[in-house]
Amino acid sequence: MKIRSITATLLALCISSAWAATDEPIQPITPAKITKPAMVELGKKLFFDPRLSKSGFISCNSCHNLSMGGSDNLKTSIGDHWHQGPINAPTVLNSSMSLAQFWDGRAADLKAQAGGPIANPGEMGFTHALVVEMLESIPAYQVEFKQVFGTDKIDIDKVTTAIAEFEKTLVTPNARFDKWLKGDKKAITTYELAGYKLFKDSGCVACHNGPDVGGNSFQKMGLVEAYKTTNPAEGRMGVTGKDADRFKFKVPSLRNVELTYPYFHDGAANTLSEAVTTMGRVQLGKQFTPEETAKIVAFLKTLTGDQPNFKLPILPPSSDTTPRPTPFN
Amino acid sequence: MKIRSITATLLALCISSAWAATDEPIQPITPAKITKPAMVELGKKLFFDPRLSKSGFISCNSCHNLSMGGSDNLKTSIGDHWHQGPINAPTVLNSSMSLAQFWDGRAADLKAQAGGPIANPGEMGFTHALVVEMLESIPAYQVEFKQVFGTDKIDIDKVTTAIAEFEKTLVTPNARFDKWLKGDKKAITTYELAGYKLFKDSGCVACHNGPDVGGNSFQKMGLVEAYKTTNPAEGRMGVTGKDADRFKFKVPSLRNVELTYPYFHDGAANTLSEAVTTMGRVQLGKQFTPEETAKIVAFLKTLTGDQPNFKLPILPPSSDTTPRPTPFN
Repeated sequence: MKIRSITATLLALCISSAWAATDEPIQPITPAKITKPAMVELGKKLFFDPRLSKSGFISCNSCHNLSMGGSDNLKTSIGDHWHQGPINAPTVLNSSMSLAQFWDGRAADLKAQAGGPIANPGEMGFTHALVVEMLESIPAYQVEFKQVFGTDKIDIDKVTTAIAEFEKTLVTPNARFDKWLKGDKKAITTYELAGYKLFKDSGCVACHNGPDVGGNSFQKMGLVEAYKTTNPAEGRMGVTGKDADRFKFKVPSLRNVELTYPYFHDGAANTLSEAVTTMGRVQLGKQFTPEETAKIVAFLKTLTGDQPNFKLPILPPSSDTTPRPTPFN
Repeated sequence: MKIRSITATLLALCISSAWAATDEPIQPITPAKITKPAMVELGKKLFFDPRLSKSGFISCNSCHNLSMGGSDNLKTSIGDHWHQGPINAPTVLNSSMSLAQFWDGRAADLKAQAGGPIANPGEMGFTHALVVEMLESIPAYQVEFKQVFGTDKIDIDKVTTAIAEFEKTLVTPNARFDKWLKGDKKAITTYELAGYKLFKDSGCVACHNGPDVGGNSFQKMGLVEAYKTTNPAEGRMGVTGKDADRFKFKVPSLRNVELTYPYFHDGAANTLSEAVTTMGRVQLGKQFTPEETAKIVAFLKTLTGDQPNFKLPILPPSSDTTPRPTPFN
């Protein structure tokens, strides 16, 4: 009885291990390892603090809303004075896995990215110097920067370092698809699996692969057929200056794609069905049937992982000397 | 030894009990008793959901930011299309204790209040009908309304009922001053206690009393000396039509007042010192010395209680049929 039980266990392990989908083009997400918890906590506060904007109203979380898949679910974002943003806000979830940041990859990493929106007149509309002045006027922030960086001299480099360290924790493991990849055959349905097969067989996986199901290359939007849009963004060319890079954008991650509508750099696709149909046509020269599209969409919805799981941060109050925001100037 | 120990304990209890400040004009806050947890969870999601606004960008939490004392720390709020609000956003913390809602008390309770900003063109800019249509298009919300209300027919009454139920949990017990009231003599310093004594002796406590340290009466702003402001709000008169109610406003709670700057209905006082000085002059005919003001401010800072302590809510995604927000129309 005992031996039979051990044999059964070993057999089950072998089957499970043999089956685990290790040779798939998509890999499971590894949970974040937090090595600097105090820096993460500081970064979290900064991420949620609207005093990093001129108006005192817009925080990183306004457009990368962690209650909504790390995005704002708008075609393009709303910035200072209700400025209409030029491009769809990418999700911050799993963004640490990207080869570079922004649609055109102009920032090498999350730290380089974080300073951008703060100083962009159409986004947070502030300056790095004023952010530092604001933070230095708040005793509780001074204490926290000192604890984290060993000095109370705050500068924008420390601010963006802390924000990036927090953002690195925003990974979403344990999607049903990841469970399937790890050997749990029942984690996705036969229909969803058929969608995955079609996703691979149709060529989607050529760009959307790796643990982030994308995020690791720049590709031309409209490879087979020109992509029609009123959005003037020209993508990667703006960074490299090369004509060959016109309309090349970073391939977005499909992780949590169910939550990050609308889709594409111009936010033109409102639904996953629209996005899949358009991608099939302009990138692969395929006309997916409604049934095929539905299958792929069903697969894509298995990519939703564990969402951010932490307490709402409580921000330290301004002091009497903290400059007050000027939203209406 | 045993008897001595029991005697000492009894004695300590008697002293503690005898000392507990039961006859003070301010009473400790009672922690919220959550009797409808599912409704609170639904209300929390709705409170954080920017899809309750036309733009998809502004939630209840935008102006009653629970990371910042339940306020936006702006003179007046930013609304749809960057509309400049007419009056300072009061904190939502402990608002269930108020005799009525809004500065002029035009809403009887939190439920009546919650519907206001949603449909105000200068705030969330939406309509109740469109909010209901949006919510009904989201399967996870449908399920949750059904679980909470026993029917999947969503209406604005249920929406505001749930939001109010969540808001009722936003009380902030365990302020240092409350600990002092309950008998912990060391919970506040001698200096802070002197500030409290001055607060009482000067007459501040005539209006700022009860567990909410305010919130339980309407009083004229500028009782002794006319209050100068460019803000056209006339307060309670707009509700009652009585000339005697001109410039009467709900006395704000002083709970967490350290966090809810700037002060007054017009947000004109940037600091607690300014607020105390002005109040002394226009309400009490007193010219507080800087030392007196500092003492009262020190006391006021002992009124900061436990801040909201819950996980960031994760919102259910829109479905393909959910109408998309139109921030730029």
